[in-house]
Amino acid sequence: MTSSDPTPDLPRVRLLPKANARAIRHGFPWVYANELVTDRRTRALSPGALAVLEDAERNPMGVVAVNPASRIICRMLDRDPDAVPDRVWFAARLSRALALRSRIYDAPFYRLVHAEGDGLPGLVIDRFGEVAVIQPNAAWAEVRLDDLTAALVEVTGVTTVLKNASGRTRALEGLDDDSAVLLGSAPQAPLPVPMSGAIYMADLTGGQKTGLFYDQRPNHAFAARLAGQGARVLDVFSHVGGFALAMLAGGAGHALAVDGSAPALELAAQGAAASGLADRFETRQGDAFDVLSALAEEGAQFDVVICDPPAFAPSKQALDAGLRAYERIARMAATLVAPGGYLGLCSCSHAADLANFRGACTRGIGKAGRAGQLLRTGFAGPDHPQLPQLAETGYLKALFYRL
Amino acid sequence: MTSSDPTPDLPRVRLLPKANARAIRHGFPWVYANELVTDRRTRALSPGALAVLEDAERNPMGVVAVNPASRIICRMLDRDPDAVPDRVWFAARLSRALALRSRIYDAPFYRLVHAEGDGLPGLVIDRFGEVAVIQPNAAWAEVRLDDLTAALVEVTGVTTVLKNASGRTRALEGLDDDSAVLLGSAPQAPLPVPMSGAIYMADLTGGQKTGLFYDQRPNHAFAARLAGQGARVLDVFSHVGGFALAMLAGGAGHALAVDGSAPALELAAQGAAASGLADRFETRQGDAFDVLSALAEEGAQFDVVICDPPAFAPSKQALDAGLRAYERIARMAATLVAPGGYLGLCSCSHAADLANFRGACTRGIGKAGRAGQLLRTGFAGPDHPQLPQLAETGYLKALFYRL
Repeated sequence: MTSSDPTPDLPRVRLLPKANARAIRHGFPWVYANELVTDRRTRALSPGALAVLEDAERNPMGVVAVNPASRIICRMLDRDPDAVPDRVWFAARLSRALALRSRIYDAPFYRLVHAEGDGLPGLVIDRFGEVAVIQPNAAWAEVRLDDLTAALVEVTGVTTVLKNASGRTRALEGLDDDSAVLLGSAPQAPLPVPMSGAIYMADLTGGQKTGLFYDQRPNHAFAARLAGQGARVLDVFSHVGGFALAMLAGGAGHALAVDGSAPALELAAQGAAASGLADRFETRQGDAFDVLSALAEEGAQFDVVICDPPAFAPSKQALDAGLRAYERIARMAATLVAPGGYLGLCSCSHAADLANFRGACTRGIGKAGRAGQLLRTGFAGPDHPQLPQLAETGYLKALFYRL
Repeated sequence: MTSSDPTPDLPRVRLLPKANARAIRHGFPWVYANELVTDRRTRALSPGALAVLEDAERNPMGVVAVNPASRIICRMLDRDPDAVPDRVWFAARLSRALALRSRIYDAPFYRLVHAEGDGLPGLVIDRFGEVAVIQPNAAWAEVRLDDLTAALVEVTGVTTVLKNASGRTRALEGLDDDSAVLLGSAPQAPLPVPMSGAIYMADLTGGQKTGLFYDQRPNHAFAARLAGQGARVLDVFSHVGGFALAMLAGGAGHALAVDGSAPALELAAQGAAASGLADRFETRQGDAFDVLSALAEEGAQFDVVICDPPAFAPSKQALDAGLRAYERIARMAATLVAPGGYLGLCSCSHAADLANFRGACTRGIGKAGRAGQLLRTGFAGPDHPQLPQLAETGYLKALFYRL
């Protein structure tokens, strides 16, 4: 791990004249491979190596992490070309990230680092009290895990650090998918996580991603407000009980959580028990489309229906099919909403922008023979800050309708 | 007011073949003047008259309100061509609107009717406890104020109903700007309104629009969270204390409210006193740009700065100039934000969409030599529902950055 040592004389890499230097100067954090002079020396840099980026006129623009194996060949780490991204530098970035979360949240359960949005490109860290889960989704972070872990412990005092290598973008960086325990020992049981008024159970080693998604918190809060006063609610693609437990905690009378994963629903049930909500909580395991059909045949009606599916449009190529899937979900879900009830539809697809997603949802609702008022357009919570220059890619969208 | 009587045999108006009948069928609520057959009989209809809209093949599409004097010549009232938009019909629409607000808010202070979003095109009703303020911004509502007022009293039990005729769009409908007391008597003193944890003072007869804006409520809540722990906060274009009082109620240590209107700031000060926050509240009257310059010269720094200006881009023609004004505000405000502090920038311009507005803000922040993380993109609260088919026009946008 020699590349984690600060190098006083960093190699230089240079933009091609055709590169969008102006955008980079104005905050865009990436250089694409076709924008860089890739001579033999640059191609020989090890993935994650540091370098000083120069514009085509050889003016230094900042310190970047280089990965000759990635389409994103450079990621901006610091606009000061003299910066030294070492353990002290990591600690400063982490302290800055922590200050934001400490201001906003009462308890240490949040996304601590949201990659580019926190000035640590490709790096995601979720915090669950004394446990942190690192997703090093860029090579520079992968080769500096020791320094990152040390800085993380110094800044936050966490006692356990896990590495989750399941991120899809790791392959694009030439990284493997070997998860590991970096510090302490892996929790032997699901971890209770207070969020949205309930207790969720997070399986940090066996679950999806880091075992729990923090991004829906503001949308949970809104759904909980809609679901007050004893409402019957349906949470499709519930995972470990996301919206269902938040709505029960907000006063819902009964929640049905649907998911394809039996282990996820088992965690949801444990969360309901830990929250004292088990008597109002029910699960149904199965394909979401099948369960929605079955519920419609049974004539089921709910006061609030929420659908938070996995990314149906994970790429531009998948956009059309993805939008059709969102439309289908909206149509099937709308038929289950009681007159005057509420429908929440979410997308975590980068490729489907807000207008596209809203269009698909509105069409689906129309095809169900219903008309909707759009009450709220929500995004990920403030522990998922965005770099404004990348804000187009804000992935999470949540639309709440009254039908 | 004969046009308020239900007419068993409504006149018919017909779309031209070139009209976008499909969009209307899918929920678009307006017919433009160049889409309608405007024969002598249609031109002779009195402003606000009811008619059955037919497509070019003479299939009925619903009951519309016609205004031959307006570019929006028809507004869809009911997609059932046999509907009778009378007092009973109004009461049904108002009950539906009330049910939503009653579910979401603990106290009867909210926008009760948000025009197209509540199925009552061009009609806005704000509720302040026992007092309602009607803005009839379309001719059909103007000529049916008696029935609307009666239905409003029946559904909500309000004892005072005021008509506010200051809406800019009334001129487009050929309506005058004469405000009036429709029921009860006008409050002789500013009305205390509980919102966002504080008490605001609303002048319902002398103030801007209906004297208080409810739309920023979710953004108030977020600003209040940012401003906890004794923060020094600056609220520019504060009106009656909008963000300033909410942030003080959330724990801010000191708030400076800036506005061009001395009467608005006087109401803000009264609100601070009523909220028990007067010792931490200060006002400065003057042009916002001038005050921002003066504060910069004084070397003032704040932990949170919020700017919620009037619409700088009220029309497409004004877009470029408006975006430059937003950029300028962002630049000037950013210089007043302490390192690691927060900046909230709002736009209520229909013409500036989210991407345009965000671009202007991000450029302004950059020109101030600062870099920002985008923490939250907020819109108007759920008492301002949108018709999804008109959602592009969602006017209010609030961006929160950390610098």
